[in-house]
Amino acid sequence: MSLNIALWQGPSPEGSDDRAFAALDAALTAAAAMGAVTLVAPEVFFPGYNQSDIPAKAQVRGGPWHQRLAKLARTHGCGIVIGYAEREGGAIYNSAVAFDGQGHEIGHYRKVQLFGPREKAIYAPGDAVSTFDLQGIRTGMLICYDIEFAPLVRKLAEAGAKLVLVPTANPEPNTHVSRLVVPAHAINHGLTIAYANYSGTEGDITYCGASVIAAPDAAVLAAAGPGPVLLVTDIARAPDPALLQTQLQDHRPI
Amino acid sequence: MSLNIALWQGPSPEGSDDRAFAALDAALTAAAAMGAVTLVAPEVFFPGYNQSDIPAKAQVRGGPWHQRLAKLARTHGCGIVIGYAEREGGAIYNSAVAFDGQGHEIGHYRKVQLFGPREKAIYAPGDAVSTFDLQGIRTGMLICYDIEFAPLVRKLAEAGAKLVLVPTANPEPNTHVSRLVVPAHAINHGLTIAYANYSGTEGDITYCGASVIAAPDAAVLAAAGPGPVLLVTDIARAPDPALLQTQLQDHRPI
Repeated sequence: MSLNIALWQGPSPEGSDDRAFAALDAALTAAAAMGAVTLVAPEVFFPGYNQSDIPAKAQVRGGPWHQRLAKLARTHGCGIVIGYAEREGGAIYNSAVAFDGQGHEIGHYRKVQLFGPREKAIYAPGDAVSTFDLQGIRTGMLICYDIEFAPLVRKLAEAGAKLVLVPTANPEPNTHVSRLVVPAHAINHGLTIAYANYSGTEGDITYCGASVIAAPDAAVLAAAGPGPVLLVTDIARAPDPALLQTQLQDHRPI
Repeated sequence: MSLNIALWQGPSPEGSDDRAFAALDAALTAAAAMGAVTLVAPEVFFPGYNQSDIPAKAQVRGGPWHQRLAKLARTHGCGIVIGYAEREGGAIYNSAVAFDGQGHEIGHYRKVQLFGPREKAIYAPGDAVSTFDLQGIRTGMLICYDIEFAPLVRKLAEAGAKLVLVPTANPEPNTHVSRLVVPAHAINHGLTIAYANYSGTEGDITYCGASVIAAPDAAVLAAAGPGPVLLVTDIARAPDPALLQTQLQDHRPI
């Protein structure tokens, strides 16, 4: 049994839908060739994490970005998990959407832990996590800073998640998130985490790259350096049982 | 400017040419979609590193394996660097061949540092390194154990190599080669090293995976865990000049 997951790390499209979809088209071609069930891409990839005027550019769930993403997923027969700026009524959310390889939306999530004054000025926070089925694997999404909050990972674990897919926009020098936090939360909660960052510079932000896929025994299944990288790896290997633990069995609330 | 390199880590084809070419076809499709100039694959991938009866299965340079590899590279417009068991007259070599994206052989190398009694019983050692042009980058090949011998890396650096591509078949528990030796030799000799291992088990060998691409400042550009992985990364980033050094400028022979 195998389950391949792809992860794309590259520069922000900086507001260009053409650049965004060209990059995703190439990455999905590669992911599909390797039999990946889904491709994970960065946070607010539409229109680009650090773009100005996000509220004016945000789109509704199911809007033009989603329609084009659904079509792209269907064309390649490979799912996609990706961040976008969502408008609903008067509110803007930092959201992630999951399409399956038939182009159906199978998951949607709004970032709970907004980071810093800029995000808090633009976005309203989400208030829930949810899970969906990814080829037999119960799966959840978080976004960037969320992953640094164990209670969110725990919520997903309690909901049965064995896989957490995380679009991110993590600036230099915060590689500790990839090196330490992601593998630590994977082993502490008994699940696999795929964390997909940008590379390069967008306005006043230089991203640290370092995208990573960590297994439930904290093994790093694939990892990126600072530059553009595509990773595809099988996440279905059996971890060392001696290293498997989960806080669910042993949590003593205080 | 960018230069994308792909690296495939997966199980041995265990003597099946069909399995070998199917795996390479998928990996080259992915590599080409990401604009990679070449794909690096493991040592003695033909017929499989740990197969019995290697002398009977070995083929001449330019034989059927090479003809099929050349065609595959041309079909995808992406080069390939891969290990095979070479027969020349009465001798068998542990060799690597490089084809460009037009299917021309651009490089050929015979492993100098044979590892352990089994390899020494099967293969004759090579006696030279060589370099070739890979889209403007002077490039050399080494094979597995070779990379642990600094004089071989130095020979390539003296010949102007800025990139060393290394098919390998590295068993558990030797991840120190990927974690330490490859990045150390990259920074000590001022070049990029891509080291492509197997995953999984073949006969009495379990491979440790951990394929890696390390930059001239020792930055790990992409890294694999224990399982099947495809990596594609841009190797043309500018390393931190403060971290760049080369022993060529300062070598005092004793």
